[in-house]
Amino acid sequence: MPTPIDLTAVLARFQEPWKPRTVAALNDYDIRVVRTRGEFTEHAHPETDEMFLVLTGSMTIRMGADEVRLGPGQLFVVPRGTRHQPVSPDGAEVLLIEPRQTVNTGDTPSAFTTEPVRLA
Amino acid sequence: MPTPIDLTAVLARFQEPWKPRTVAALNDYDIRVVRTRGEFTEHAHPETDEMFLVLTGSMTIRMGADEVRLGPGQLFVVPRGTRHQPVSPDGAEVLLIEPRQTVNTGDTPSAFTTEPVRLA
Repeated sequence: MPTPIDLTAVLARFQEPWKPRTVAALNDYDIRVVRTRGEFTEHAHPETDEMFLVLTGSMTIRMGADEVRLGPGQLFVVPRGTRHQPVSPDGAEVLLIEPRQTVNTGDTPSAFTTEPVRLA
Repeated sequence: MPTPIDLTAVLARFQEPWKPRTVAALNDYDIRVVRTRGEFTEHAHPETDEMFLVLTGSMTIRMGADEVRLGPGQLFVVPRGTRHQPVSPDGAEVLLIEPRQTVNTGDTPSAFTTEPVRLA
């Protein structure tokens, strides 16, 4: 019998911020969850939009002089090529959807650059 | 200043079940919300996977002899070509992600067939 993916249960399995887990595939896209805390690398994805949906907590996406603040049940799509910096002083649990080959730090390699862990 | 999309606020703007609203674009995909209640048309999407994430309530996706039951925070991707019937006796609010041209009843036109309303 097929089983659903329980996002709360998946997120309970790890604590490190900024280390995405891939929980499912949607065509050539990955559905990922990530914990955020603190300031991430400012970067852009020249080739793709990127969707953020906050599940719990809060996160701000800085985009130059603009910013968008996200709480639970709020989503935002960063347009392709837009430099953005996720910051999350209080932490958040976030759902990401992006093409499979998308690197978390986009065009700006940093200490945060990582391959998503693929969960069964 | 860019603003987030608040899924609860969007869903509060309509009550009809099985009438998806497109809330954002992600490349050539649409991010949609829908209310479910009762039994939907059994159908397949021969050309694409389809993601369901239950936000509130509960929904079952029947797939032949199999079924997957989804509650809040649980997601499932119906593989392309898989006949499936969403049923939701108690109702649910659901996030859908699928390619823009995806028709809600897939290969099986019915009274439920509808174009998603695009929200600004």
